Amino acid sequence: MTPRSENYSQWYNELVVKADMAEQADVRGCMVIKPYGYAIWEKIQRILDDKFKETGVQNAYFPLLIPKSFLSKEAEHVEGFAKECAVVTHYRLKTNEEHTGVVVDPAARLEEELIIRPTSETIIWNTYRNWIKSYRDLPILCNQWCNVMRWEMRTRLFLRTSEFLWQEGHTAHATREEAEERARMMLKVYADVVENYMAVPVIQGVKSETERFAGALDTYTIEALMQDGKALQSGTSHFLGQNFGKAFDVQFVDKNNQLDYAWATSWGVSTRLMGALIMTHSDDNGLVLPPKLAPIQVVIVPIYKKLEELAVISERVADIVARLRAKGITVKFDDNDQKKPGWKFAEYELKGIPVRLAIGARDLANNSVEVARRDTLTKENMSLDGIDDKIVALLDDIQKTIFEKARAFRDGMITKVDSYDDFKRVLDEKGGFVLAPWDGTPETEARIKEETKATIRCVPFGTPDEDGLDMLTGKPSKRRVLFARSY
Amino acid sequence: MTPRSENYSQWYNELVVKADMAEQADVRGCMVIKPYGYAIWEKIQRILDDKFKETGVQNAYFPLLIPKSFLSKEAEHVEGFAKECAVVTHYRLKTNEEHTGVVVDPAARLEEELIIRPTSETIIWNTYRNWIKSYRDLPILCNQWCNVMRWEMRTRLFLRTSEFLWQEGHTAHATREEAEERARMMLKVYADVVENYMAVPVIQGVKSETERFAGALDTYTIEALMQDGKALQSGTSHFLGQNFGKAFDVQFVDKNNQLDYAWATSWGVSTRLMGALIMTHSDDNGLVLPPKLAPIQVVIVPIYKKLEELAVISERVADIVARLRAKGITVKFDDNDQKKPGWKFAEYELKGIPVRLAIGARDLANNSVEVARRDTLTKENMSLDGIDDKIVALLDDIQKTIFEKARAFRDGMITKVDSYDDFKRVLDEKGGFVLAPWDGTPETEARIKEETKATIRCVPFGTPDEDGLDMLTGKPSKRRVLFARSY
Repeated sequence: MTPRSENYSQWYNELVVKADMAEQADVRGCMVIKPYGYAIWEKIQRILDDKFKETGVQNAYFPLLIPKSFLSKEAEHVEGFAKECAVVTHYRLKTNEEHTGVVVDPAARLEEELIIRPTSETIIWNTYRNWIKSYRDLPILCNQWCNVMRWEMRTRLFLRTSEFLWQEGHTAHATREEAEERARMMLKVYADVVENYMAVPVIQGVKSETERFAGALDTYTIEALMQDGKALQSGTSHFLGQNFGKAFDVQFVDKNNQLDYAWATSWGVSTRLMGALIMTHSDDNGLVLPPKLAPIQVVIVPIYKKLEELAVISERVADIVARLRAKGITVKFDDNDQKKPGWKFAEYELKGIPVRLAIGARDLANNSVEVARRDTLTKENMSLDGIDDKIVALLDDIQKTIFEKARAFRDGMITKVDSYDDFKRVLDEKGGFVLAPWDGTPETEARIKEETKATIRCVPFGTPDEDGLDMLTGKPSKRRVLFARSY
Repeated sequence: MTPRSENYSQWYNELVVKADMAEQADVRGCMVIKPYGYAIWEKIQRILDDKFKETGVQNAYFPLLIPKSFLSKEAEHVEGFAKECAVVTHYRLKTNEEHTGVVVDPAARLEEELIIRPTSETIIWNTYRNWIKSYRDLPILCNQWCNVMRWEMRTRLFLRTSEFLWQEGHTAHATREEAEERARMMLKVYADVVENYMAVPVIQGVKSETERFAGALDTYTIEALMQDGKALQSGTSHFLGQNFGKAFDVQFVDKNNQLDYAWATSWGVSTRLMGALIMTHSDDNGLVLPPKLAPIQVVIVPIYKKLEELAVISERVADIVARLRAKGITVKFDDNDQKKPGWKFAEYELKGIPVRLAIGARDLANNSVEVARRDTLTKENMSLDGIDDKIVALLDDIQKTIFEKARAFRDGMITKVDSYDDFKRVLDEKGGFVLAPWDGTPETEARIKEETKATIRCVPFGTPDEDGLDMLTGKPSKRRVLFARSY
């Protein structure tokens, strides 16, 4: 595998495929998520879903296809979005005249074209119109897990694909305050899951006007930092005001018997999180997975020469496996006789299994086992007495250690600058996040982006007021904002 | 609501909407699955998914869009399928000249049209070609939960919609025997879940050649019977032979170092199961849900006049709720003061909540509660002592009772006939399943279908050999087969 230092981008592409996470499909820009990768995604899904439900959210399902005219109803939304879309124009195929294949039946042309959802605000708010008549019908807190499609020109597995999987939450509220609170609440759920389960540290904040979701009054974001010093937007939550309520005429009678438009939020994370997970922790030997998301947490490899030795080891291992499983640990005993231990070690390093136990006849005689941890690549011998509790503690430690390591790296990659020269130098020589004064105008933001490829990732929550001068224009700046080059 | 006896079809349509299960979307033939309906679907999903995994199946994800040319590769498949499909021809919209909306950008026409998957055999076997080189790579046991689309002309919520949700399992094997065993194994999983969780009795069997999945050598099916005497195909599992292996050139080196084509199965159930669930148990008052799938199993309604009484009742109910939850029961205490008890009773009957507790001041004084069961609409007073265990037992009893009731109905609707006159009379006067001799030819099957609208649902597993005469042609028949009119 290409080392990270040589070509980070190529390392990533190779790792995703070699570790059996995903591969390019024979459909432009689309991916196949392989079972090993999907098992991790399922764990992320389950954790998020449980946390959504704890806040009162319910799942539902809305149509894949959106009538073209819906997209035009919210003016900003269609301007900022929805242009690179898959368009359905026909609804039937027929056998060709030579009877060798199928062609599109020209007689089966749709009156109005349908768009494969790039996001579902329009179709959902069109539906909410019939659900919302009174403040008693509010709030509505719906989420859906589904596929979406945006016709991306340059794609990369998990990070940017034409089709991807995600969840999109869409809530409707009687008041502005409640909607704003919901948008922030869901960002906190994202930050919780990404930090405490994926072990990926994030900076929470609010987007600049330019970087907002098309149709939002405010977009909140969590921003992670990859090992190459580039930022990765990992989840967003939008306060949409009454824009969609007005565009789709969703009015309700409020407590004072007055008609008002419903207030909206939407929020989503996608299979892009898989990219963040892989890039944050992994190394030149392969994946490094946080124990809380690893499909297999512990692998046991027998070391033996003769099959009789394997039989003796297997018997003892059965007991260890039972004890680990009783603690809720996922264990695999790899007694495949076709592969050498060295091959297995490399394979499980590649797959990111957090803990590897190796057991030979001598270990058994000593009542011990060799324990290797994937994150540090260190090994130690441990007594088999109380091995189950020790492994529980070790998995906890690995979860903490990889998070702390990623956070220390990220913290070391936040640089304060005041001049544009320093800004450009830091971006080129060091990378990472740069905290710099900004005059607050989209024009300055655009020039900086054009000249440096860096964008405002967010204004981090809790950023103090700090009078300064914009590094480019010299105009007054009220606070620093967080810049970075990004995925 | 329209009673079943007046118009069964209308009763169903009204019930699905009134009970908040689903509604028509503003996209032709598509549905919105509402939170209450989706919560039931999620439970079905979770149960099926766990059982799939117990058999070694792993989840994965394959692309939504399929290149048109893939569909032509398996000749029978494209003949029997895939004509009424949504076709993507363009990948970009643009703002119209008047700046009032969007139009399809004619410059963004795809070289090859893409089809929204009606089922995924083609794209998956195209992928498997790269995964399978040796018998050591087999079996592959993948499943995906996803949306699919078939452009249906006449749609009904859950039963037949253009877009629907399903799971599709696709397995690859080294031997014919192993693939056939897998196809039958998955049918057994379906029958288990549909009977023991959905409480819907099914007949398992094999389809006639005419009714087989396009491209299959054998299609196994589970057939349920609705209250109007029509059959509903509720799940199918296909033994595909080497048809897709050959069409997509999936060859592997077997144990004897010979090249062979991989053997295939595919199997699926869909949101159609929701239709089976609703139609099997529900009555003129609304839904009847099996306790194992009910999002809320027990609802508690306080009976009071003054708010002080409600406070006293609430205090006591909190303890009951805690005891029920400790037993794993999902409970809702409806203390909404805006609605009368009568309104609540009707509402929870409509929603099919299996058990309703009503508690007033007098009940508290007597240390008792009124317990109503949804399935029988009967009420009894129970002492609050040990109420948690009593409710557990009651929920079990309801689960069994509704299954037995449905099975008794179904068993009473299986009629043996030998003459075509009797066959037609039973279909018209009684409905249900009809076991009749058949000469085994597609021609006879087609004539019967044309003349009576009845189709062969299956040859039930374990059907004994029985020499007879085809009721239509008088030609020899080797065994009876199961006919019915169906959804």
